[in-house]
Amino acid sequence: MNLSLTTIEDIPLIHSGDDLSGIIAEKTLAQKIVPQNGDIFVVAQKIVSKAEGRMVNLTTVHPSIEALHLAEVTGKDARMVELVLQESNCVVRTAPNTLIVEHKCGFISANAGIDHSNVHGEWGNEADWVLLLPKDPDHSAAVIRQELEERFQCRLGVLIIDSHGRAWRNGTVGTSIGLSGLPGLVDLRGTEDLFGFHLKITQVAAADELAAGASLLMGQAAEKTPVIFVRGFPYELREGELKELIRAKEHDLFR
Amino acid sequence: MNLSLTTIEDIPLIHSGDDLSGIIAEKTLAQKIVPQNGDIFVVAQKIVSKAEGRMVNLTTVHPSIEALHLAEVTGKDARMVELVLQESNCVVRTAPNTLIVEHKCGFISANAGIDHSNVHGEWGNEADWVLLLPKDPDHSAAVIRQELEERFQCRLGVLIIDSHGRAWRNGTVGTSIGLSGLPGLVDLRGTEDLFGFHLKITQVAAADELAAGASLLMGQAAEKTPVIFVRGFPYELREGELKELIRAKEHDLFR
Repeated sequence: MNLSLTTIEDIPLIHSGDDLSGIIAEKTLAQKIVPQNGDIFVVAQKIVSKAEGRMVNLTTVHPSIEALHLAEVTGKDARMVELVLQESNCVVRTAPNTLIVEHKCGFISANAGIDHSNVHGEWGNEADWVLLLPKDPDHSAAVIRQELEERFQCRLGVLIIDSHGRAWRNGTVGTSIGLSGLPGLVDLRGTEDLFGFHLKITQVAAADELAAGASLLMGQAAEKTPVIFVRGFPYELREGELKELIRAKEHDLFR
Repeated sequence: MNLSLTTIEDIPLIHSGDDLSGIIAEKTLAQKIVPQNGDIFVVAQKIVSKAEGRMVNLTTVHPSIEALHLAEVTGKDARMVELVLQESNCVVRTAPNTLIVEHKCGFISANAGIDHSNVHGEWGNEADWVLLLPKDPDHSAAVIRQELEERFQCRLGVLIIDSHGRAWRNGTVGTSIGLSGLPGLVDLRGTEDLFGFHLKITQVAAADELAAGASLLMGQAAEKTPVIFVRGFPYELREGELKELIRAKEHDLFR
């Protein structure tokens, strides 16, 4: 068995309103890759957000009292904190220079995924522009998937990923924030091991494993390769959604 | 850029004392793979533990008072709990059917990685045998690496992985527990983004990203493909250790 991850080269800088799936399709073909049933495109959150026009200029943001308070606790820009709160269900942890929240989409991340790097606004000072995550990443993935499936006339998966920090461990790993056409979780309950015992470890976060592997090739710095083409994903494709991967609050010992 | 992960086929059931690197080398060659400088072997913890004879029969374990208490809280077998405590620095969380600890190697995991499935003891009742993690996974990785480098006469990396649950998210992901000859973390601090801003997200858990990607191909059920051959890891190989990936307790908001 082989799992092959390939960078799609020469993706240009993406701007609000760009036809992202058209660009991905064009650059895939330029590389002489012909997608087949079961292939997956992994896409960095940042270019999806940019195509969807999720840039915000901080000078337009008016911090609430809660944001001003959290800005003091964390030492962060109060306007940035206000945006984080607007994008979140609740605050999970704060510390100096740290603001960890439950994003409206359900996952836990620092700063609700709002990012400062590689954002180029249309007016004013570049340093004032930040980028929110896609509003509904599952939907974004579904739209890209539909367009790529039409273009390539085959059954594909699309996975949108971001780099997340983790409890207990250093460093970020690529993590799923939206998906369409592939399983988030793969349930192995009932599967027998080599000696016929039933397995106890039962659910594999297959989409997150793929997100991490694909993230390796994206690099973190210059947004040069935000699309990865995947052949050989070892589980059957099916309809899937981010929600599968989110642990319900009442079952989570670390909130 | 391409990252290629390939299962090494026909790895036999591993027993205590087996020459694991010899077996890996033989099966790699049988598959007509010729390792080159920069290639990496990802190895499932379970076969390393077995080769190192880390099986324990629960009937030989005498639970301490602490183990008896935690067994009551968690509903787990007190002898199993005793082994978990022996393998751990401290208990992080308990709940019915859940015992999360800091392993002696520093990482946080359920049951100190002790596993019941696919373990075949040499005497008594099969259901009484469990398998501990390798005693020093970085050392295990270094030994395998040295032997494979000698055999193949090139510069390799070896990564030992296990399936870990996570805070906040459902499902397990392949996670590094020992490594030799590759970076755990890759530090991008000081790297500039496309517009010349310095990056804030700075450390990528490269070994964990690879662990997750490789885990996809291992399957979880039947231990059929516990070795993955990796070509195209995009970061420069260097000496590395698990410790890079472990967040110091005093910087961890989730203990």
